[in-house]
Amino acid sequence: MIAVLAGGVGAARLLRGLVRAAPHGSVTAVVNTADDTVLHGLHVSPDLDTVSYTLAGWSDDERGWGLAGETWTTMAQLERLGGLTWFRLGDRDLATHLYRSQRLAEGATLSEVTAELSAAMGVPATLLPMSDDPVRTRVTLADGREVAFQEYFVALGHAVAVSAVRFDGVERSQPAPGVLRALASADRIVIAPSNPIVSIGPVLAVPGVREALAARRADTVAISPLVGGAALKGPADRLLRELGHRSSAAGVAALYRDVAATLVVDDVDAADAADVEHAGVRCVVAPTVMRDVDAATALGRVVLDA
Amino acid sequence: MIAVLAGGVGAARLLRGLVRAAPHGSVTAVVNTADDTVLHGLHVSPDLDTVSYTLAGWSDDERGWGLAGETWTTMAQLERLGGLTWFRLGDRDLATHLYRSQRLAEGATLSEVTAELSAAMGVPATLLPMSDDPVRTRVTLADGREVAFQEYFVALGHAVAVSAVRFDGVERSQPAPGVLRALASADRIVIAPSNPIVSIGPVLAVPGVREALAARRADTVAISPLVGGAALKGPADRLLRELGHRSSAAGVAALYRDVAATLVVDDVDAADAADVEHAGVRCVVAPTVMRDVDAATALGRVVLDA
Repeated sequence: MIAVLAGGVGAARLLRGLVRAAPHGSVTAVVNTADDTVLHGLHVSPDLDTVSYTLAGWSDDERGWGLAGETWTTMAQLERLGGLTWFRLGDRDLATHLYRSQRLAEGATLSEVTAELSAAMGVPATLLPMSDDPVRTRVTLADGREVAFQEYFVALGHAVAVSAVRFDGVERSQPAPGVLRALASADRIVIAPSNPIVSIGPVLAVPGVREALAARRADTVAISPLVGGAALKGPADRLLRELGHRSSAAGVAALYRDVAATLVVDDVDAADAADVEHAGVRCVVAPTVMRDVDAATALGRVVLDA
Repeated sequence: MIAVLAGGVGAARLLRGLVRAAPHGSVTAVVNTADDTVLHGLHVSPDLDTVSYTLAGWSDDERGWGLAGETWTTMAQLERLGGLTWFRLGDRDLATHLYRSQRLAEGATLSEVTAELSAAMGVPATLLPMSDDPVRTRVTLADGREVAFQEYFVALGHAVAVSAVRFDGVERSQPAPGVLRALASADRIVIAPSNPIVSIGPVLAVPGVREALAARRADTVAISPLVGGAALKGPADRLLRELGHRSSAAGVAALYRDVAATLVVDDVDAADAADVEHAGVRCVVAPTVMRDVDAATALGRVVLDA
């Protein structure tokens, strides 16, 4: 069994490779839900959706988010009505949010809804939200204003400096059913190449998760989301620097050193291996840019063999 | 000024005629909201939407509900996901519900949202929800089971017998801002040819509305929704009989006699005029079937001249 701590796009791509590299049905992903938001009355879970769409083969890989063949009828009409359209919800994507919101209103847990959606989509992995409790990332901007994560990430296009990040509600949250069991029983634990601050950070902050991972440190392999010190997508590099970390393989190693004995860094960062090892983390150098499914599968094998 | 008590399709068609027959900007509709429902986390106001789509010229008159040129991408996907699809929400229609749900979540009242949507759609009338407070029609079926209105109306296709109807929350509701003022100041008050039990009934049940109307009885004209004793659309005729009323012009006159001095009945019901007058209600005989806008405009003139 393989357990994966997962954020959005980077994790989704890794998972698409891992399910090919690993035995059928052996992959469980624990997915960040601190990006979740309620928009127009709908519960949107961006990371769960990115992971499930990608694993189901439904994702639009060129655009990098959402569903292939998506249409935008509702958004166009909402724009005509003067509604909020900065968070783009496609016509097909909307069905996921309608389904989730209806089931949550009926009293289902996010775990239950996630299992139902995964089954309906034919997702070849077990997806667990990190928690069934509401945890919401709040971002303090350099001007002192605190905003919800999606306002920072989507509305502001993460083009503004950040002075602090917190995960509202995380102290009172519990790991979703199955999360601690998956971490305790997995042969291999993987920290996906997701944003260490706002994607993996919330998962580790759920009470009990960091401790469960620390107890399995020897079997945990993290993949650096940085290539040559830069994020392939999103603001991970800037966030690391703005919050006082190094935007490098060694910086990532320092963040994960208590939970992961091994860090996979990209070929272009081979020169950082000594720094990583100096932080007390074994360094594996391999291609980490998942241009296609084959590259992701190869990275999956590296992680399983590490 | 003309004030209209309104339900869904019949009221929408009358209003489309009235705004042509009456001076520009003189029509205010007080619309039933007891059909409102929350589906998938979205606040749906079927009667407000039918009226505004029709007045905006956006309605699909052949289907009889929803928007012209509507598409169903989200519903098709929701069906694929195994979600609830018995209440069909088109892709364009969804935008209205997203807008309304977002604004209500932000703290706006239903009146405010309705005014915003009307402005965005260019609705040539003032639309007021009967109340900003939640009132929900509950229907007791012949088997004793009580269901929400939309379950009776849409999911069951109103093809089941009804033993009772109540408007949950109506005792605690208040008329929306402007409703009592519109009824007090209108030169003419019109009760649209809507279902007397489940469309006009809730509006009259909002505390203060029946009394306000009774005080204006001489200036109030109702239009019978029955033609030859039958409803043109929907279950008004059966509901009237099942709940102990007569399904006839005289039955409608008896229901409205304390609030309307005049009832317009269709040409085919001319023979009922004596029964109507016997109930103490002046009877005007005219064509009431609004096949097109011209017919609706003619009926609007009848009502204004009555």
